Amino acid sequence: MAHIDLGVDETLLPGINGPLRYRPETAKPLLELAEVLLRGPHPLTEDERELIAAHVSGLNGCDFCRGSHAAFAAAQLDEGMTLVDQVRADLDTAPVPEKLRALLRIAGAVARGGRAVDAGLVDAARAEGATDLEIHDTVLIAAAFCMYNRYVDGLGTFTPTDPEAYASAAKRIVQEGYYV
Amino acid sequence: MAHIDLGVDETLLPGINGPLRYRPETAKPLLELAEVLLRGPHPLTEDERELIAAHVSGLNGCDFCRGSHAAFAAAQLDEGMTLVDQVRADLDTAPVPEKLRALLRIAGAVARGGRAVDAGLVDAARAEGATDLEIHDTVLIAAAFCMYNRYVDGLGTFTPTDPEAYASAAKRIVQEGYYV
Repeated sequence: MAHIDLGVDETLLPGINGPLRYRPETAKPLLELAEVLLRGPHPLTEDERELIAAHVSGLNGCDFCRGSHAAFAAAQLDEGMTLVDQVRADLDTAPVPEKLRALLRIAGAVARGGRAVDAGLVDAARAEGATDLEIHDTVLIAAAFCMYNRYVDGLGTFTPTDPEAYASAAKRIVQEGYYV
Repeated sequence: MAHIDLGVDETLLPGINGPLRYRPETAKPLLELAEVLLRGPHPLTEDERELIAAHVSGLNGCDFCRGSHAAFAAAQLDEGMTLVDQVRADLDTAPVPEKLRALLRIAGAVARGGRAVDAGLVDAARAEGATDLEIHDTVLIAAAFCMYNRYVDGLGTFTPTDPEAYASAAKRIVQEGYYV
């Protein structure tokens, strides 16, 4: 049970879904931000952006967001979770393109704190072909998940353990997007 | 100079202003979220909400956001900065109402991580009269500033040292709000 009365059955609306329903005025910009960053037109694929989101969520210890965005990354939970685990375990050897690897390093620094992003990390991403827009959006995706993760866990929301909950949410997001 | 070319004179558009100008698609929900949380109709005053924002920014080491929201809290930089410093130095004795003190404790926990918010902190706020909405919005303001702070510092934006820069921005925000 969440720390406050969200007015919903949390087993049906787990994680961030309860707080989004509870406060529609803040849900609107929160969902619009996710839609632009993760699904808007972009040089990075949706899978790549979802992997950045899942990786940061893992670093922040937010199981709901990690499970959700790993599932959205692959639209199939097992594959997404495996990749997120590989990235978390050893980013140097995880099977991802070099540009994405460099961007994931920036995202990991953002999770530690804004000032942890230094010119060396940015130059390394640029050397792999990352553009200013890709660097900007990587920083903002990572920063945004430092918010979403804290929103979800700070309110003590329910985290499903059944993989099917994430897989079915992934189907909906892939088809309809983050506006619900 | 920021890590990427924001296409602006950062001495005129310091901190978050450059990235907002650089990427209007993300600026829209980022500003809407700030407007709803900090200036929308609310049982907490605008000063109280700005103080929560400034406190979290201080904990995250983001001088630009701390200076900005301290100034917005008081619409006068010196007074706001003094109060933010008092809250940071000793929350137990800072001259704030008891309900706000309990909410600032929740905000500080959110800055450490979502799971740092426990039932004890929430119960303590409720005992001082905090409502579910006030607890919800405190968690989300604190979480949102964990994002804004990392966005500002993760891109290495310019932080003015002249107090006048914050005082003049405060005048504009108080009159016109966060939509620019």
